[in-house]
Amino acid sequence: MEEKEISQAVIGRLPRYFRYLGELKDQGVERISSQELSRIMHVTASQIRQDFNNFGGFGQQGYGYNVEYLYTEIGKILGMHKKHNLVIVGAGHLGQALANYMNFERRGFLIKGLFDQDTSLTGMLVRGIPVRPMEELENFILENEIDIGVLTIPKEGAIPVSKRLVKCGVKAIWNFAHVDLDVPEGVQVENVHLSDSLMKLSYNITRFEKEQR
Amino acid sequence: MEEKEISQAVIGRLPRYFRYLGELKDQGVERISSQELSRIMHVTASQIRQDFNNFGGFGQQGYGYNVEYLYTEIGKILGMHKKHNLVIVGAGHLGQALANYMNFERRGFLIKGLFDQDTSLTGMLVRGIPVRPMEELENFILENEIDIGVLTIPKEGAIPVSKRLVKCGVKAIWNFAHVDLDVPEGVQVENVHLSDSLMKLSYNITRFEKEQR
Repeated sequence: MEEKEISQAVIGRLPRYFRYLGELKDQGVERISSQELSRIMHVTASQIRQDFNNFGGFGQQGYGYNVEYLYTEIGKILGMHKKHNLVIVGAGHLGQALANYMNFERRGFLIKGLFDQDTSLTGMLVRGIPVRPMEELENFILENEIDIGVLTIPKEGAIPVSKRLVKCGVKAIWNFAHVDLDVPEGVQVENVHLSDSLMKLSYNITRFEKEQR
Repeated sequence: MEEKEISQAVIGRLPRYFRYLGELKDQGVERISSQELSRIMHVTASQIRQDFNNFGGFGQQGYGYNVEYLYTEIGKILGMHKKHNLVIVGAGHLGQALANYMNFERRGFLIKGLFDQDTSLTGMLVRGIPVRPMEELENFILENEIDIGVLTIPKEGAIPVSKRLVKCGVKAIWNFAHVDLDVPEGVQVENVHLSDSLMKLSYNITRFEKEQR
């Protein structure tokens, strides 16, 4: 398959395809047409075909796609066959919520360490993982081949901590802090800005009410 | 201002403008050009102008935009001058994390109630808010003029609970359950699919490694 630049919008839709195909596979569905997939996913069939064409089209022949094949291929594209080692920095409620979320492990995202600058939390166990003090961060990352750092700390600390993570060679940062990080090229950042998401909801409520008037 | 259909991509960028403008305002900056805003936000100046043109352009004259005016106007568009009453369904780690997050209150999103089907949690206080049993959901929503329901429950329960919320007239659902909801037109849904976000990160790591070879 030829490599070409694929837009982040397309990438952003892949996990959803992966999720639906996983469910179809679990239900024992063997083949599915883009029309059927369109109906259950509420996206147009042409959107689906366009998205899949970015990856060579996955060979829809005769009656639709082979579900298992499509699931496996999209999984490979997403890197789901690989394991990733994570540390969570910030053992507050959100950090603990993420550490407790078993689904990540099932997808190959292994939470190896939990860090917090509040030393009164040191040693507290979250799903068997002890909270460690921040000065152990660098050694822990190197010794445990951590490739993803998760930031669940207030925005003030996020930039300095992101620099420490980058210095230790993490490949990616999953950022819940309400600030944009400035990392070198090659370090991937995925932001989950919860307040932004709520504001978008607020916009859409306001917008709909205006339309109704 | 004429109303027209504005893409969700533009809407999705508004909270980020709002955040940066709020910081500039706090720093005492009075005017800013699209070039300067472009530099600090790492988006092109033409993107900024295009985005703002959707809302009439906010009158950039001479040297740049008036920061306070722009902040206020974008805030109005986002509905930030209104208060929203929320209930959180699911008082597990994530639900508690959200209930504890003070920033939402500052933005006018008031968490009024917390519900869980696990009755052993009934009465537990999270930032002063007691967890209530699910059978009180409907009455509580009606009595407290709740307009946003937050789902922090496993995907199995999400669809039935979303139907109950819709029946009581909530205007929007902030959905953290790993499933797509099917709600009537006019009910706004904003999904935060954390696994999807992690998979996107995984894709970008894999992609970058391939490019380096």
